[in-house]
Amino acid sequence: MAQQNLLLLPGDGIGTEIMAEVEKLIAHLNASGQSDFATDTGLVGGSAYDAHGVAISEEDMAKALAADAVLFGAVGGPKWDDVPYEVRPEAGLLRLRKDMGLFANLRPAICYPALADGSSLKREVVEGLDILIVRELTGGVYFGEPKEIHDLGNGQKRAIDTQVYETYEIERIARVAFDLAKTRDNRVHSSEKRNVMKSGVLWHEVVSAIHANEYKDVQLDHILADNCAMQLVRNPKQFDVIVTDNLFGDILSDAAAMLTGSLGMLPSASLGAPDATTGKRKALYEPVHGSAPDISGQGMANPIAMIASFAMALRYSFEMVELADKVEGAIASVLDEGLRTGDIMQDGCKKVSTSEMGDAIIAKL
Amino acid sequence: MAQQNLLLLPGDGIGTEIMAEVEKLIAHLNASGQSDFATDTGLVGGSAYDAHGVAISEEDMAKALAADAVLFGAVGGPKWDDVPYEVRPEAGLLRLRKDMGLFANLRPAICYPALADGSSLKREVVEGLDILIVRELTGGVYFGEPKEIHDLGNGQKRAIDTQVYETYEIERIARVAFDLAKTRDNRVHSSEKRNVMKSGVLWHEVVSAIHANEYKDVQLDHILADNCAMQLVRNPKQFDVIVTDNLFGDILSDAAAMLTGSLGMLPSASLGAPDATTGKRKALYEPVHGSAPDISGQGMANPIAMIASFAMALRYSFEMVELADKVEGAIASVLDEGLRTGDIMQDGCKKVSTSEMGDAIIAKL
Ligand SMILES: CC(C)[C@H](C(=O)O)[C@@H](O)C(=O)O
Ligand SMILES: CC(C)[C@H](C(=O)O)[C@@H](O)C(=O)O
Repeated sequence: MAQQNLLLLPGDGIGTEIMAEVEKLIAHLNASGQSDFATDTGLVGGSAYDAHGVAISEEDMAKALAADAVLFGAVGGPKWDDVPYEVRPEAGLLRLRKDMGLFANLRPAICYPALADGSSLKREVVEGLDILIVRELTGGVYFGEPKEIHDLGNGQKRAIDTQVYETYEIERIARVAFDLAKTRDNRVHSSEKRNVMKSGVLWHEVVSAIHANEYKDVQLDHILADNCAMQLVRNPKQFDVIVTDNLFGDILSDAAAMLTGSLGMLPSASLGAPDATTGKRKALYEPVHGSAPDISGQGMANPIAMIASFAMALRYSFEMVELADKVEGAIASVLDEGLRTGDIMQDGCKKVSTSEMGDAIIAKL
Repeated sequence: MAQQNLLLLPGDGIGTEIMAEVEKLIAHLNASGQSDFATDTGLVGGSAYDAHGVAISEEDMAKALAADAVLFGAVGGPKWDDVPYEVRPEAGLLRLRKDMGLFANLRPAICYPALADGSSLKREVVEGLDILIVRELTGGVYFGEPKEIHDLGNGQKRAIDTQVYETYEIERIARVAFDLAKTRDNRVHSSEKRNVMKSGVLWHEVVSAIHANEYKDVQLDHILADNCAMQLVRNPKQFDVIVTDNLFGDILSDAAAMLTGSLGMLPSASLGAPDATTGKRKALYEPVHGSAPDISGQGMANPIAMIASFAMALRYSFEMVELADKVEGAIASVLDEGLRTGDIMQDGCKKVSTSEMGDAIIAKL
């Protein structure tokens, strides 16, 4: 087994606690000969700012670029609410995405049957839900220039953000979505606001062309982003894969995640283009939930989304599909046995701490 | 009673059917001496395009600017999917908003007790829900320039949209939100993406300043737009007034509307600044739902959102608060009696057509 390099970036808040569980898991897998991961750890977000005055140091950035995959916890917290815009915690994550070229963000929204009652939606509306949101992650209003605030005098300012998309950016994310749809229910909804935005007009045109030329066998529907938000609330099971831009993806994927009633369970993967010689994609894996400063340091956080993110790494970066299945199976079986962290606690279940949950999952492997 | 001028712009699809019910209602109110409205009718959207080749004619635009209030139905449909961008149906609505200066869009999301079971959310999550979304309507990415698509050659294009906000635009919408909060539960959530967008940074700064200087007695919370989408799904009753920009408002208000389970019930008001001499605001009232081409022409559409929009006009444009209460009361009582159009049909209720529903509401007045 060739050694694989993982960079761990726990970040802030509960990031460190949930990453500790993945470290235990990796140690177990290595010790039992199921894997051979070499791990290194870096700082990102507020913790990097405290140590280095930036949201990620050049050294850690270089490590991220060199690693076979990056596991990312979460960043941010009230402590850093007033740091300068350029070095705010989120800047570390945005730089990783941009400099690693992670244009494809895969956000599954899956409703675990054992947890369906935790949703604010009716059981029948969400039971069996399995949506994959494919969000463009290195373009759009997140990175377009100009992005600035001008002082106009007289107490007036003007703020500008720019949404920019080029054909090739839309083509490559569309291909990711269509390819993934083929491994699922073979249906893609492409979402934009072409009735208002020129980037939506181009998005619609390019996705339609890729579909017509390369993926005629996949069902494609177009849906305006506002209607998509509505339909996610009304009848989420109508969706298989949703492909959308960076900003709409941010909002729609968070809404979709919340439908499942188990945000603390949901992983995500951010992938780059395949390397021209090795075919390997740069990749970063992170839970969908944030740094939850209100509960951090208390051993209460749910480590499952972070562990499931590691399982996604096994699957997408290391082709260790069997081991990924095994880890996901272990998660499902501790849930079936009734173990719950506080966020997903239900009557008749056993409440466990972050590390007890991690240990229980490891015990299944 | 001074005569009031109303311009009716039914638009496309079910727009004409639901507007017909408001016309009957106005005729009844005029005939019974409860009002003195003079109505005129114009074309907007696809129907204007078919007649004049534009999404609204100069003549109808002039009528809208001269009217005391505009009632708007809905625009769009597959028939006009391929008309040029500049004359697409939505362009008529966007021009009305911009040229009438309708910067404040009020979108109540109210869950009618009789209809709570129609929601995809659990009854306890939405029963009694009463949110008001105050959406900025004449700025942001809807109108910012540049907004264009460039041909880069080699099959590549670049699309650009620009989100622009100036201090005064944020100040005036913030004041509308704070003023309305005072008539309700006195709480405002301001939503943006200041962790990613400079317009979000300015939005946060300006709303905070208006709050500190003019509305200290109103509770203000800031919430990122992605988290707002999540929280709307998780626990919508935590919100009273949400103030947000044009694009986030589009998406969040649609999600909020769908939570109630009765989209066909929800009105909206779009208001301009008070006139310097008369104090009157230009105003347009429209249902939150769209033109529903799939059911148009079949007498199935729910006219309640359109009638409730007329009630909002009575309240906000004509200070006919008692009559507005009376119309809203009539809507509630026909629902209590079990009358339902198809979209809100429930077991044990009586299914009625568009005009039967309109007649039943008028009969209560
Ligand atoms: C932390 C923030 C910059 C980020 C985003 O807006 O993309 C987050 O909300 C996400 O969805 O990963
Ligand atoms: C029809 C369309 C241009 C419009 C918008 O995006 O504002 C609609 O979705 C709305 O919310 O009123």
